[in-house]
Amino acid sequence: MTISVHPDRLLPGDPALRDVARELYRAVAELPITSPHGHVPPQWFADDVRFDNPTALLLTPDHYINRLLHSHGVPLESLGVGREDFTDEEARAAFRTFCSHWKEFRGTPMKYWFEEQLVGVFGLELEPSEASADELYDRIDALLATPAFRARALHDRFNIEFIATTDDPCDDLEHHRRIRQDPDWDGAVVPTFRPDKYLEVVRPDWNRDVDRLGECAGTGVDTYAGWVAAMEARRGFFKDNGAVSTDHAHLDAGTVNLTAAEAEKLYSRARSGQISTPEAERLRRGFLFEQARMASEDGLVMTLHPGAWRNHHTETHHRFGADVGADFPFVTEYVAALQPLLDAFGTNPGFKLVLFTMDETTFSREIGPLASFYPSIYAGAPWWFLDTPDGVTRYRAAVTESCGFGKTSGMIDDTRALLSIPARHDMARRLDSGYLARLVAEHRLTMDEAMDTAHDLVVRQPRRAFNLVGSD
Amino acid sequence: MTISVHPDRLLPGDPALRDVARELYRAVAELPITSPHGHVPPQWFADDVRFDNPTALLLTPDHYINRLLHSHGVPLESLGVGREDFTDEEARAAFRTFCSHWKEFRGTPMKYWFEEQLVGVFGLELEPSEASADELYDRIDALLATPAFRARALHDRFNIEFIATTDDPCDDLEHHRRIRQDPDWDGAVVPTFRPDKYLEVVRPDWNRDVDRLGECAGTGVDTYAGWVAAMEARRGFFKDNGAVSTDHAHLDAGTVNLTAAEAEKLYSRARSGQISTPEAERLRRGFLFEQARMASEDGLVMTLHPGAWRNHHTETHHRFGADVGADFPFVTEYVAALQPLLDAFGTNPGFKLVLFTMDETTFSREIGPLASFYPSIYAGAPWWFLDTPDGVTRYRAAVTESCGFGKTSGMIDDTRALLSIPARHDMARRLDSGYLARLVAEHRLTMDEAMDTAHDLVVRQPRRAFNLVGSD
Amino acid sequence: MTISVHPDRLLPGDPALRDVARELYRAVAELPITSPHGHVPPQWFADDVRFDNPTALLLTPDHYINRLLHSHGVPLESLGVGREDFTDEEARAAFRTFCSHWKEFRGTPMKYWFEEQLVGVFGLELEPSEASADELYDRIDALLATPAFRARALHDRFNIEFIATTDDPCDDLEHHRRIRQDPDWDGAVVPTFRPDKYLEVVRPDWNRDVDRLGECAGTGVDTYAGWVAAMEARRGFFKDNGAVSTDHAHLDAGTVNLTAAEAEKLYSRARSGQISTPEAERLRRGFLFEQARMASEDGLVMTLHPGAWRNHHTETHHRFGADVGADFPFVTEYVAALQPLLDAFGTNPGFKLVLFTMDETTFSREIGPLASFYPSIYAGAPWWFLDTPDGVTRYRAAVTESCGFGKTSGMIDDTRALLSIPARHDMARRLDSGYLARLVAEHRLTMDEAMDTAHDLVVRQPRRAFNLVGSD
Repeated sequence: MTISVHPDRLLPGDPALRDVARELYRAVAELPITSPHGHVPPQWFADDVRFDNPTALLLTPDHYINRLLHSHGVPLESLGVGREDFTDEEARAAFRTFCSHWKEFRGTPMKYWFEEQLVGVFGLELEPSEASADELYDRIDALLATPAFRARALHDRFNIEFIATTDDPCDDLEHHRRIRQDPDWDGAVVPTFRPDKYLEVVRPDWNRDVDRLGECAGTGVDTYAGWVAAMEARRGFFKDNGAVSTDHAHLDAGTVNLTAAEAEKLYSRARSGQISTPEAERLRRGFLFEQARMASEDGLVMTLHPGAWRNHHTETHHRFGADVGADFPFVTEYVAALQPLLDAFGTNPGFKLVLFTMDETTFSREIGPLASFYPSIYAGAPWWFLDTPDGVTRYRAAVTESCGFGKTSGMIDDTRALLSIPARHDMARRLDSGYLARLVAEHRLTMDEAMDTAHDLVVRQPRRAFNLVGSD
Repeated sequence: MTISVHPDRLLPGDPALRDVARELYRAVAELPITSPHGHVPPQWFADDVRFDNPTALLLTPDHYINRLLHSHGVPLESLGVGREDFTDEEARAAFRTFCSHWKEFRGTPMKYWFEEQLVGVFGLELEPSEASADELYDRIDALLATPAFRARALHDRFNIEFIATTDDPCDDLEHHRRIRQDPDWDGAVVPTFRPDKYLEVVRPDWNRDVDRLGECAGTGVDTYAGWVAAMEARRGFFKDNGAVSTDHAHLDAGTVNLTAAEAEKLYSRARSGQISTPEAERLRRGFLFEQARMASEDGLVMTLHPGAWRNHHTETHHRFGADVGADFPFVTEYVAALQPLLDAFGTNPGFKLVLFTMDETTFSREIGPLASFYPSIYAGAPWWFLDTPDGVTRYRAAVTESCGFGKTSGMIDDTRALLSIPARHDMARRLDSGYLARLVAEHRLTMDEAMDTAHDLVVRQPRRAFNLVGSD
Repeated sequence: MTISVHPDRLLPGDPALRDVARELYRAVAELPITSPHGHVPPQWFADDVRFDNPTALLLTPDHYINRLLHSHGVPLESLGVGREDFTDEEARAAFRTFCSHWKEFRGTPMKYWFEEQLVGVFGLELEPSEASADELYDRIDALLATPAFRARALHDRFNIEFIATTDDPCDDLEHHRRIRQDPDWDGAVVPTFRPDKYLEVVRPDWNRDVDRLGECAGTGVDTYAGWVAAMEARRGFFKDNGAVSTDHAHLDAGTVNLTAAEAEKLYSRARSGQISTPEAERLRRGFLFEQARMASEDGLVMTLHPGAWRNHHTETHHRFGADVGADFPFVTEYVAALQPLLDAFGTNPGFKLVLFTMDETTFSREIGPLASFYPSIYAGAPWWFLDTPDGVTRYRAAVTESCGFGKTSGMIDDTRALLSIPARHDMARRLDSGYLARLVAEHRLTMDEAMDTAHDLVVRQPRRAFNLVGSD
């Protein structure tokens, strides 16, 4: 059995809309990719890596795929998750397991992205199945050994104009420096400051991590003021190394404007291990407020990804660690949670805050409305569990009517799966074209307006939201 | 560049559905407008005002438009918000600012309504832009000076059969009396009783306002019973002056059936400034319960608009006051909140309660189901942030399957923007026609049933929900 | 006026999609019905009952229909609800009342199901109306007196391959035994274990009911361990009599893993009438956890239906009892509530948990994601208030993109209305065909994949989710 990717895939099924959508899509299909937030390891580009094997590249690190296989009874260890000792034979068997479960991916974006990669990146039209698994594995493996499939070649072939990674505040950004200083390659790969673990006071390792933060910043961290100074130093270092944003993910979006006295008191209790759980939460919300204060001064865009209940299954967490598919969306609230932060910085011209969610009820109820008043707020593209054909379509329908197109972030792929980046951005362009086509068909936009907007969504909006070169 | 309004605008883009929708729409397009709840100042009709200038009429008071301009960095003061000293030159500049941001309104209902007003009310087909701003301004300004654009002429041209304003309980309703007694004009303009501020005990001015209530009612307000008597008196006065409903907007929909003793105790603490925040909330919920009790006796329909977090940005509130766009939807709950009220009055034949929401998750989860059991409850039309093409469509899809069409309120424009009223009602008729056309195409309704329903939604449902003349 | 049921009813209105949907639907239209959860009384099949009259069969027990009539001011007693003394004349009058309110059912599934029954089951094409009511009543009544309309004949005509009832743990399952041992009929009618009332400690009759549980199980119930032993005994008895699942409905989905000591302490306080409300809730959540523990051992599938606020209107409850339409959906949460249960049993190969909801916000936010990781979890079909054309369509769009088709339950009718069962399953097949057709039109599935999936949804998924014979 062969697979094929239809030229009109993801465009509206209705012929009248499809023709309009196709015209819009064609106008933006070949534009370069801007990826202001994602998780591709910078070392891949610094070292121009050659990827190990199909499983190590496409399956083991992809918690979307692992998750669904696990839900059908496939043990995570058989997919290589958390395994240092995973053999070639096991990698091949894992790929076979995946292929034999191929039909379980129907209707999911994982099927869509995988097919796009097979056909679009590898040029293979063989449908995954138990029978085809070994042939697919071998052919992909052979391609991965060729120069055209090294990290930089893929990046260039994908027409990636700008890509951001996600990095620890103590990272020395050596990979980024090497990329930047390499005369042989001109890829724009910048870091993103991700300080979550230094804010999560309840984490067992928090104290040790804060010590390390103080060391790498070269400041004392015995006081709240010291913690702030360390953060400011590291943010500055990231900014000097090209960072345009900071990324924040906590269970909720809560913020609080602590007085200096309370901040110091809570911090002191935290450092001495005597802080209560509610106090730790309060301190974390104070820390997040402080990050926004810094952002309004240093101009790094703040992106907020709240609402994931992480490591929901204890045994899975203990055996396999974090980010293996056992994270779930949780009821999320923004209007009350962000009020202290927005009251202080929401209209500050130097401040930008991109809001992401896994709780789509907030699109029309909170995120769209907030973005339609506060100059600082942009409605982030659909994220985790909503980065799907229907999820994206519901997002546009839910936010556009309050905040228009001009206060949305543009496509954010948020992925570590380098080979899926073209498919993800192409998907967004197709779906946005479909949404715009509907507005044209309903005479809410003229074709000229839709065409201009389609272009804006790819080019102008990410530049605007992330203060990139070329933004107006 | 010119704009035009297409005859099929807002009808489904799919040709098969569009033909059916068009037929349904045409059958109701010219029916008179019933507007049972809105915010047009009665003085406009009493004095048959001539409107000042395009900005004062179309921009400064429209917090939908201000909000989105503000989100793009336009200062509210430059739009005339909160300005007594706004000059003609500044008004013209504000209009230019709006026109130069025209593209940011794409996909929003503000663009739709504005175009409808330009073409449908002013007969102008010039697209707003920096280049066209002055010409548009001058041409609208010239039209506003003509008799055809005075308040009453517009009202008559818009074919408004019935319109309600929103008024303070202490209002002397002099404007309404003058309209009613004017032999030269027969517009039906009735007041609506809006007592919120007398229920919000936490407001700094609450005590002073209650004093004033006592004065205008001619009753003592030293006791809870006195407060009730004053409310009853003023409700009676409103009813004598044509009112058909009372309107209520608080952060939540909470109600409680207080004993007389607790009510008096809480009221006494409130009047003496010694009430705690939770007690004040409890008293407010008791007050709302009491309003429902009165409604079940005097027959004024109760409309409830909970769930707006008002004045979210302190500085904006201090500088510009309320209702300037810094209000946001908030998670809203009805089933638990209204249980005490519905337990007491929900099946009372004299009682009607129209539920509005800004949290669309409640359409299928709470409002539709409640309206499908309680004879008193009507599912209110989509309000603020949801009074949009897709919002209305989602509303119909979410409530109809539980409560049918016969327990929905019909179109409520809830607007102060007189010139947008035809566009808003026309929009509802178009969207309802589109929804009905889908049911016809899916063979869930016959064309005869759909035609009858389209008529009911415009004529029968507002009459039913608001006890208007002609209701069955 | 006549009614007719169109061959393409509920298929997409768009002609391009409709053709694809029709082809998919035809491939599954005639497949037998599997009904793993519902409320048809087993006595109907044991005794092969002849139904009393149209009102007693179609109206009085149907709280969907009663509810909407009540919302239009029809007293429940006039429909026979809670009436032992309901006369034939009153039954006829009730049917007339229903027919005269026929238009109020437009857009609801009650209209759809009723028409399907009229035409499909009774072969009557007369539209309900005040004028046609008596004729309809007489013609249905005459048909009910014929052998073809006895319970078993209907069951066989409906092609029901498997049907589960819902039963009290103390039920002697005599009806099921008689059916099973009857050599003249081979219908598969199995019981379902529904222990809710023995878990709801706050119920006034709880203690008495637990006493009775102990008696029927033949175990002491003075201790928590005794309660558990009694439950295990009765679950075993149900399993021996063919049960495949247990059903659980509480206000929330909360679970807690109590220590043996705390469980005994709470239980003791409960039995002695000294338990507080929060403790009673905690004990109920401990009981539910315990049921999951038993399920992971005995293999009975657990189905969970949380989130109904029951008996919302006190007077209605006192006069008419439970299940008369005064139950409403309530905000529901799963990710936190089920964490203790899933942490303990979520990956247990012997455990299955089907999650239902009346809060559709949880489809994309919680239920789909949970089913996409935990092998035990299946996303239950849309239930109460969401078992509607648009509700089902939104469900598929919301869960499929995370958990695919293979982790959904297949159609669950959950109904007592035997005559509506074919219409309900047919509706699901039509709507699923429409959803699949859209995926084909958007090139997300090939026609072969869609065809295979359509079949899976009818045949494979209920078998999988409920461990039925033939499951893979």
